[in-house]
Amino acid sequence: MPIYKAPVEDALFLLNDVFKLERYGNLPGFADASPDVVEAVLSEAAKLAEETLTPLNRVGDKEGCKRAPDGSVKTPTGFKEAFAQLRDGGWIGISAPTEFGGQGLPATLTVLVNEFLCSANMAFAMYPGLTQGAIAAILVHASQSLKEKYLPKMVAGEWTGTMNLTEPHCGTDLGLLRSKAVKQSDGSYKISGTKIFISAGEHDMAENIIHLVLARIEGAPAGTKGISLFLVPKLLVGDDGKPGAKNGVSCGSLEEKMGIHGNATCVMNYDNATGWLIGEENRGLNAMFVMMNEARLGVGVQGLAQSEVAYQNAANYAKERLQGRSVSGASNKDKPADPIIVHPDVRRMLMTVRAFNEAARALVMWTALKGDVAHRAEDQKERQSADDHMGLLTPVIKGVLTDVGFTNAVLAQQVYGGHGYIAEHGVEQFVRDARIAQIYEGANGIQALDLVGRKLAKDGGRALQAFLGEVMGYIKEKGGDETLKPLVTPLGTAAGHLQQSSMWFMQNAMAKPDNALAGSYDYMHLFGLVALGYMWCRIAEAAAPKASEPRFKAKLVTARFFMERLLPETAAHLARIQSGAASMMELPQDAF
Amino acid sequence: MPIYKAPVEDALFLLNDVFKLERYGNLPGFADASPDVVEAVLSEAAKLAEETLTPLNRVGDKEGCKRAPDGSVKTPTGFKEAFAQLRDGGWIGISAPTEFGGQGLPATLTVLVNEFLCSANMAFAMYPGLTQGAIAAILVHASQSLKEKYLPKMVAGEWTGTMNLTEPHCGTDLGLLRSKAVKQSDGSYKISGTKIFISAGEHDMAENIIHLVLARIEGAPAGTKGISLFLVPKLLVGDDGKPGAKNGVSCGSLEEKMGIHGNATCVMNYDNATGWLIGEENRGLNAMFVMMNEARLGVGVQGLAQSEVAYQNAANYAKERLQGRSVSGASNKDKPADPIIVHPDVRRMLMTVRAFNEAARALVMWTALKGDVAHRAEDQKERQSADDHMGLLTPVIKGVLTDVGFTNAVLAQQVYGGHGYIAEHGVEQFVRDARIAQIYEGANGIQALDLVGRKLAKDGGRALQAFLGEVMGYIKEKGGDETLKPLVTPLGTAAGHLQQSSMWFMQNAMAKPDNALAGSYDYMHLFGLVALGYMWCRIAEAAAPKASEPRFKAKLVTARFFMERLLPETAAHLARIQSGAASMMELPQDAF
Repeated sequence: MPIYKAPVEDALFLLNDVFKLERYGNLPGFADASPDVVEAVLSEAAKLAEETLTPLNRVGDKEGCKRAPDGSVKTPTGFKEAFAQLRDGGWIGISAPTEFGGQGLPATLTVLVNEFLCSANMAFAMYPGLTQGAIAAILVHASQSLKEKYLPKMVAGEWTGTMNLTEPHCGTDLGLLRSKAVKQSDGSYKISGTKIFISAGEHDMAENIIHLVLARIEGAPAGTKGISLFLVPKLLVGDDGKPGAKNGVSCGSLEEKMGIHGNATCVMNYDNATGWLIGEENRGLNAMFVMMNEARLGVGVQGLAQSEVAYQNAANYAKERLQGRSVSGASNKDKPADPIIVHPDVRRMLMTVRAFNEAARALVMWTALKGDVAHRAEDQKERQSADDHMGLLTPVIKGVLTDVGFTNAVLAQQVYGGHGYIAEHGVEQFVRDARIAQIYEGANGIQALDLVGRKLAKDGGRALQAFLGEVMGYIKEKGGDETLKPLVTPLGTAAGHLQQSSMWFMQNAMAKPDNALAGSYDYMHLFGLVALGYMWCRIAEAAAPKASEPRFKAKLVTARFFMERLLPETAAHLARIQSGAASMMELPQDAF
Repeated sequence: MPIYKAPVEDALFLLNDVFKLERYGNLPGFADASPDVVEAVLSEAAKLAEETLTPLNRVGDKEGCKRAPDGSVKTPTGFKEAFAQLRDGGWIGISAPTEFGGQGLPATLTVLVNEFLCSANMAFAMYPGLTQGAIAAILVHASQSLKEKYLPKMVAGEWTGTMNLTEPHCGTDLGLLRSKAVKQSDGSYKISGTKIFISAGEHDMAENIIHLVLARIEGAPAGTKGISLFLVPKLLVGDDGKPGAKNGVSCGSLEEKMGIHGNATCVMNYDNATGWLIGEENRGLNAMFVMMNEARLGVGVQGLAQSEVAYQNAANYAKERLQGRSVSGASNKDKPADPIIVHPDVRRMLMTVRAFNEAARALVMWTALKGDVAHRAEDQKERQSADDHMGLLTPVIKGVLTDVGFTNAVLAQQVYGGHGYIAEHGVEQFVRDARIAQIYEGANGIQALDLVGRKLAKDGGRALQAFLGEVMGYIKEKGGDETLKPLVTPLGTAAGHLQQSSMWFMQNAMAKPDNALAGSYDYMHLFGLVALGYMWCRIAEAAAPKASEPRFKAKLVTARFFMERLLPETAAHLARIQSGAASMMELPQDAF
């Protein structure tokens, strides 16, 4: 049975000591996020994650969701009760606007809470997570009357939300989508079509489900410029705000899949379902992108979350499992063998995972705080610069944190040896669950394309310049600091690789765009390493004055490990990027 | 439904053009392996793999094995019939000695055939694979009477074999094992104890199962020097050679696991089971190691095999799935979108996998041929040098081919996007199945330990010197060759990294062994890259004269891709190795 302890202390250290939350006190909602409120929120969330959701993780995996012939879906034993607890605790709406019943706290807190929930039970956490994404899209783009009708129930967790993009023949390339919408005289639309891979598309935990659906209005232009976004409730909502008649939408089947069995992945059939336009006609992708950016950050957090829970279990196992003797002398002489954590290669695996986790949490928090600034600051310039950061870092966080999160779950599984392959310990489930995060919400290759193909050049490269400017400035500033020098020196090398790569794209991609796309994946990971390395410097800076305490001393050691063991990869990324597209693209298609 | 086409042409190219099989004509059995015989054997094996085993792969995964209350185990639908076909074709014994009914062909052929069977159906191929391993151990260490009684049936595939090492409290550290053996007056032993993770431990496909079991004879010394190896048949075999009464061994339960569901992973209970000693008392590990080395090469092949079949399916999908447009202009103007293989990042994934597969197949073949020389050559020096190569390369092949094989299965799955996460396409099964190969037969960290802790220093480093001597000599010899220069130049850099790492270990591990162990995993992968890079040079050398044919031209392009995209990793490995053990080992255990 897997264990989990939410990293509340680490989160508080990051918020208070590294990012100094009190500096943001002038933002709306932040004044309410006093240190004691933050600690109380995180501690309560930890309790929910540890006590309620963790024990249901394997249950969800084993039982999965079941669809009845009438199209209804039953979630695994205990999910409904757990969701009721989540709803009653008001967890979905802690950062939602107070006017719709939320608590208006910083979105950063929601991101942290979601890490805890995802570590405990990723399949479960997707239900509230998707609801939060849907709330975000409705908030930004829907009419006031739609907001008033739907948001209070969603914020309260009485109704959940979904996003419906993918169709059997189109996922990444949404321009191909065929679901259609026909305008009615009352201003509503009739939606028809088939959507696949719809997470949380149907279930038994909420009174109603609000689907956000991309479809093409009759006569709309072809391609992505003819797509609109609609709100389609499972049950039509009367003027009294109560769900009534069934709408023309149903779950046609559930997918049999590698993991996240506790989440219902549905084929959704829309048959003249009644829907309402969100935002403008033919501008659906824009509206959906609000939801997707939110969701992409959330999916990055899933990668971190699986890495964290896998680490905790592997570390526990490594301290308990007795096998072999330390090469530097038995550490456990009265027992027949030493715990396997004495072996360097086991340490290598554990240190690799934790050196990622702690920096990844910082990176998420840094970016989530920028998100709060982008949405809440008064100063337009401040908002813009925070928004630049969000746009640039979102694909990096999604792509890198889910790739490394998966790899780390595999490493943690490896610590268990043969026992890691057996379902009983629960660690192979982390691997299967973590895998989806690299794929959905835009496969990671698409994140790399978004980063290199769109975000780098946007506004004349303003976002990249700001990012590199901050990192380079920090390196320069701290280069003489005795504690930080051993960290900022390798970071400087790595940041140099990032600059050289960016330069190489500028020089070589204009004439031949394949040269940029062939290096995009390596660039995303190179970027991620620099960002994580910068986080380690910031963490070490905050930890150094407290290094007499073991847990802060550990931060300094782990920072060094990161620089020595993970950061050197940037040179390989640079070499691959500079090799260009030639050998990659030369073979004719029929050679494959 | 996954597809598979055995790479017969590629195997023949390697055998005939790269390794020039005809040069080995003086070895026993090789004269029979004329080009037409080899082609016929491989083509027949391909047929068995493609037509019989491929269609059963998903069946095996879905149904799994079922244990009845009486301890008997039913394999998935179709497995029994497929095994009968394999048996009747004489496949298990193609390389076994003719005196026991085998065909005496080169073991290299068996290794190639096993790649095909493992690609088609890894869970199935483990049954004959383990039988071959058991045959090898019996051949080298058992008495003539045991050989005569058991080998003919095993070679014929009428009986299968297993290896029983692991116990609940000990896997890697066999010195802890508790199963006991009590000598009987007739020279046999009574074996008692519990073994876990016993692949193919019980099933319904063969008349009898021959278990090779490690146990401790009463009064034997503690630790690994008190372990003996026993042959324990499921059914006792009479003097007439026929299986009769049930022995005291039974399957207590089946493990629920991540993959290879078609293979029965058993808890085996030995309760005063009758067994016979193989080899000398207390020298069981030595005898078992024969089986394990054979098995480790075989497990390396499983990694390659899963990578190959995953590649083939992903390449097919990438040519069929229409999504998006090529950035260099639509390639498919009459269709709504281009096949995704036009996108550089999809190419990156496919090229990465194939650049590994083709070189890994060569590396396996090179080493298998050395195995044949080690066992069959007349000249003692030739045997010794081949044996050195085997000892050095076995952990590299096991560790690197299974690690990269798994990563490649994940890459292939990624090509499918969301569809790769769905069971229907069969590609997520490759990932789950491939995962075990990194764990069993010595987890890959143990392979790295074997390489760095034992193989490097053995006989004064003779094996490593010979390997590096050959690679460096080749680089020197071909450095002026116009075609090969772009390949051998980067290989020279990589081989230099391998030399520097080896040197670093010599200088830093004497005083502090942790310094070597902390770098062992990176060293194994660095070694693997150099070996694979060398294989690419050899392949390119053989392909260059035929480069007017597209398939040989493709070899030259893929070789370049390997050097540009995979080989640069050696520098990162070197950097990590040279960072030593300090930051890895510094934290106290309770910091984890």
